[in-house]
Amino acid sequence: MNSDKFIINYNDLKIAITDIFTTIGMDKNDAELVADVLVEAELRGIPSHGLVRVKDYLGLWQKNRLNINAKPKIIKESLATGLVDGDNGLGMISGDFAMNLAISKAQNAGCGVVVVNNSNHFGIAGYYAIKAVKHDMIGIAMTNANPTVAPTFAKQAMLGTNPIAFAMPTKNEPMFLADFATVPIARGKVELLEKQGKTVPEGMLQTADGIPTIDPSVLRKKGTILPLGGDYEHAGYKGYCLTAIVDILTAILSGANFGNFVPPQVSYLPEKDYYPGKGLGHFFAAIKLDAFRPTDEVKNYMDLWIRTMRATTPIDPNQPVLIPNDPEVEKTNFHKKNGISILPEVINELNQILNELNIPVPDKLSNF
Amino acid sequence: MNSDKFIINYNDLKIAITDIFTTIGMDKNDAELVADVLVEAELRGIPSHGLVRVKDYLGLWQKNRLNINAKPKIIKESLATGLVDGDNGLGMISGDFAMNLAISKAQNAGCGVVVVNNSNHFGIAGYYAIKAVKHDMIGIAMTNANPTVAPTFAKQAMLGTNPIAFAMPTKNEPMFLADFATVPIARGKVELLEKQGKTVPEGMLQTADGIPTIDPSVLRKKGTILPLGGDYEHAGYKGYCLTAIVDILTAILSGANFGNFVPPQVSYLPEKDYYPGKGLGHFFAAIKLDAFRPTDEVKNYMDLWIRTMRATTPIDPNQPVLIPNDPEVEKTNFHKKNGISILPEVINELNQILNELNIPVPDKLSNF
Repeated sequence: MNSDKFIINYNDLKIAITDIFTTIGMDKNDAELVADVLVEAELRGIPSHGLVRVKDYLGLWQKNRLNINAKPKIIKESLATGLVDGDNGLGMISGDFAMNLAISKAQNAGCGVVVVNNSNHFGIAGYYAIKAVKHDMIGIAMTNANPTVAPTFAKQAMLGTNPIAFAMPTKNEPMFLADFATVPIARGKVELLEKQGKTVPEGMLQTADGIPTIDPSVLRKKGTILPLGGDYEHAGYKGYCLTAIVDILTAILSGANFGNFVPPQVSYLPEKDYYPGKGLGHFFAAIKLDAFRPTDEVKNYMDLWIRTMRATTPIDPNQPVLIPNDPEVEKTNFHKKNGISILPEVINELNQILNELNIPVPDKLSNF
Repeated sequence: MNSDKFIINYNDLKIAITDIFTTIGMDKNDAELVADVLVEAELRGIPSHGLVRVKDYLGLWQKNRLNINAKPKIIKESLATGLVDGDNGLGMISGDFAMNLAISKAQNAGCGVVVVNNSNHFGIAGYYAIKAVKHDMIGIAMTNANPTVAPTFAKQAMLGTNPIAFAMPTKNEPMFLADFATVPIARGKVELLEKQGKTVPEGMLQTADGIPTIDPSVLRKKGTILPLGGDYEHAGYKGYCLTAIVDILTAILSGANFGNFVPPQVSYLPEKDYYPGKGLGHFFAAIKLDAFRPTDEVKNYMDLWIRTMRATTPIDPNQPVLIPNDPEVEKTNFHKKNGISILPEVINELNQILNELNIPVPDKLSNF
C-alpha cells in the first residue's frame, strides 16, 4: 500500500463489489444490489455497514452459511400484507423484494406491511425506507440483529441493536430520513474508541457482571450494550421496550429467530446449537400519503415541519439544530465529489479472503 | 377530608367520572368511555393520566375549547387506511372510533392504519393498542402532545413527550404491552420530584439556556425535557428522531398541529396565536397475526420470547428481568383488590371546579 489512505470513486467501488459477488456465482442484478446498499452506507458515512462487510459475507458463504443464489418467495399475502421467505440469502435480496411488495400493496390498499424470515444482514435500514419516498409514501424498515444488548436489570446480551429507519417525503426540503440503531452506541463505534484509547460516555455499557462502565474493552469480555437511555434510573427500560418491539415485529411475526437466537453474521462466530426460528428477520412498511390527504398538501406541511425545527434557537450559535439526515446528506455530497476513503485494514482483510478463495482482486481495488 | 388518603373502588370511580360528564351534557356512552380510559390509567398506576385530568377537561370545556358532543367523522378511507376528524372532542372519543376502524380494516386487508386530526388529549396510549389484542392483532397507538421537549442542540421546547404504545397477543403468558413516552421523564414525574425536594437524574433536563441540570424546578422557568438518551454525546439525537417520527405520523400525515403548535391541554395555558393544522393528532395501527402465520403459531412463539427474556440472569437476584407491562399488571391487580388511592389535592381541585360550574359532586366522591 503506497499511502495510509485508499480513496476510491463510489461508482468504481460499486463495480469492484459487484465483481466479487458475480465471481462467486451470484446473479449480476443481485450482486449490483448488494454493492449498491454497501456503497450507499459508505457514501452516508457509515463505513461499519460498507465494504468491511464483504469479507463477512464471503466468510459465511465459504462455510455454507449463506445462499448466494437465494430466491425470495412470498409465503402468504393479503390485500395489504405479505410474508416473505428470504431463502437464507443476503438481506439486500429479500429486503429489496419485500419493500417493493410493501410499496405495491400500499399503491392498492393505502398501506402495506411485509415481514421477512430466513434472511441475513441487510446493510443499512435506510436504503429500504427511502425506496418508498419516490412513490410519495412513508417508508419504514427494521431488522433484528445478533445479541449485544442487555435488557434492563439483565446481565446477558439478549437483544440486538435492532435499527429503525423512517423516511418521509417532502416538497422542496431534503427528504426526512431517520435511520438509527435503537441503542446508544453501535458495536463498531465502541471498537473504534478502544483503538483510539478513549472511553465511552456513561450510560452505554456494562461489564459481564452488570456494572456500569466507560471502558470500551468490556465488549470483548462478555460485557453488554445498554438500551437507549442507559440503566433503569435513566429510563433505559424505554429503550428496552423499543428494541423489544423491533424484535417482535421482525422475528415473532415472521417466524425468524428472535433475541439471543439471531444467527451470527460473521463466520468467526460459530452457529448456535438451536434455532427456534428461521434466519434473521426484517419488517417493512409503506404508507401512501394520498390515502390520507392530497400528496402535495402533506409534502408542503412536512416542509413546514422541517423549516420550523431548523429555525429553533440553538444552544451554541455555531451548532444549528439539525434535521435527521442532514449530516448524511452532507457526507454523501462530500464522498461523491472527493471519493470514499477506505481504511487500509479493510482492504488488507478483504484481499486476504479473496486470495484464500482464489477470487481475483477487482481492478478497481488492486491499484494501491 | 377525614384522612390524608382517599381510597375508592375502581367501578365507583368510573361511575363518578361518568356522572360528571353526563351532567354537562356528554352522551352517556362517550362519558363512560372517557371514564374507562381515565380509570384504566389509575389502575395501571399512572395517576398523571387519571382522575386529575377531569378538572383539565372541564376547564377546556368551560372556555369553549373542547366539544363534548363531538362526533368523529371519516374524512377519507381506502382498503387499509382511514383519516378521521375528531370534531374537537376528547381523544378518547375519536381514538376509540379510529382504533376500531383500524381493526376492521385489518380484518379485511391484514393491516390497518388510521390517523386522527382535530382531537385533544386521549389519556393513556395503551388503552387503544390493547383493543387490537382481543382480535388477535398487534395494536399500535401514538399521539403528539404539547411541547416540552427540546430537539438536540436546541434551547426551546419544540416537541411533545409523544408516547408510543405497542400491544402484542400471547397464548398463555400475559399480553405484551409497551406504553411509554418517548422522553426520559414525564412532566408529572418532574413535578413530583420537585415537591419531594429531590433532584432528577442526569441527562433528562436542561435550563432555558440549554445547560444540563438535575434541578426539577427548571421546567417552571422555561427549561425543557431532553430527548431519550440525553444530550448529543449520549445519543439523545436518537430520542429526538423517535419523538419526531411520532409527531410526523400523528400530525403531518393527518393535518393536525405539529411540534410547538400543538394546542395546550389545560385551560390555564392560553390558546396559541396561530395554528397551521387542526387540533392534536393521533396514529393507530392494527396488524392481524394470521395474515402472516397461523395465529396460535405466532402467539406460542411470543410466549417463548417472554419466557426467554424472563429467564435471563439478573444483575441483582432480587430484581428479576421484567417484561413490559409486568409492573402495570401487578398494580392493576392491587388496585382492583384494594381500591385506588387518590391524592387529597386532586379531589380538592376537582371539587373546586365542580362548585364553580354548579355540577353536583358525584355521590361516590362526596363521602370523605
